[in-house]
Amino acid sequence: MNLQSFITDVADFPRKGIVFKDITPLLQDPLALREAVRGLADPFRSRQADIVAGVESRGFIFGPLVAKELEVGFIPVRKAGKLPRATFREEFELEYGRDAVEIHRDALKPGHRVVLVDDVLATGGTAAAARNLLRKAGGEVLGITFLMELTFLEGRKKLPDLEIRSLIQY
Amino acid sequence: MNLQSFITDVADFPRKGIVFKDITPLLQDPLALREAVRGLADPFRSRQADIVAGVESRGFIFGPLVAKELEVGFIPVRKAGKLPRATFREEFELEYGRDAVEIHRDALKPGHRVVLVDDVLATGGTAAAARNLLRKAGGEVLGITFLMELTFLEGRKKLPDLEIRSLIQY
Repeated sequence: MNLQSFITDVADFPRKGIVFKDITPLLQDPLALREAVRGLADPFRSRQADIVAGVESRGFIFGPLVAKELEVGFIPVRKAGKLPRATFREEFELEYGRDAVEIHRDALKPGHRVVLVDDVLATGGTAAAARNLLRKAGGEVLGITFLMELTFLEGRKKLPDLEIRSLIQY
Repeated sequence: MNLQSFITDVADFPRKGIVFKDITPLLQDPLALREAVRGLADPFRSRQADIVAGVESRGFIFGPLVAKELEVGFIPVRKAGKLPRATFREEFELEYGRDAVEIHRDALKPGHRVVLVDDVLATGGTAAAARNLLRKAGGEVLGITFLMELTFLEGRKKLPDLEIRSLIQY
């Protein structure tokens, strides 16, 4: 199946000059969605992962499906201020200003093997922040698996010490 | 399995006097998560659903899993400004101010049978807005399935014309 045919280019979103990759057609097609989830999980099937983590919001769509595929649970990496108990927090840079993500301090047991899932690898800032959080909480990050990778943004350079997988490269 | 034992009360979050229901322990346990997803899907298994919709952000965690269980695709109901193509938009009231949710105008085919999924039924404002959106887009909303229902907030009163299911009532 050609997964790329289920992703639509939308010009000038969120602002002029940006071509947005719209994944909603892929989500609406049950066979394409299943194929994408299997592809995201495949590189980590024999790696004894203990848990899958996903970053709010679109990592919440794919993360739990990959967790089910690997028969483990799911940790939500949330935007700052959303989690109710004591958290670790990591800031990261946006084009204008900064943002932050958090996980609960007790989200992982020491040495827990984590697979991180997100929809798109762009500049790598969010993924690097999520990786740092999972390590702060005592986890061993096995790798990150993305649906799409925007290779011209060179996000891999921010994640030099990790196994990085992506199903579709632009 | 007692799903309620995987949900933790956190006092005074997000502010004094509120008891927050923390579902992260449930998400981290693969068997509890599977049981919850099956319970969410069960009432709609023989109802010929065409698609499942879920509201950002926590509806994104459960919605795609319920969609897989029912062997259909997933429509994300997003916060305003996140979807790249032409949308329908519905505002709803918060305790202070208003918020809005959107779906793509072409998200549904006319008469498509939709199951709406979310984690918690509180005042029902978000669910009513999502229901209105799905109808605007031409869908037939079969019902809404929630993990938790805060019955003292009487959210059902905002959804008088819908089948409402919840796995856990407080």
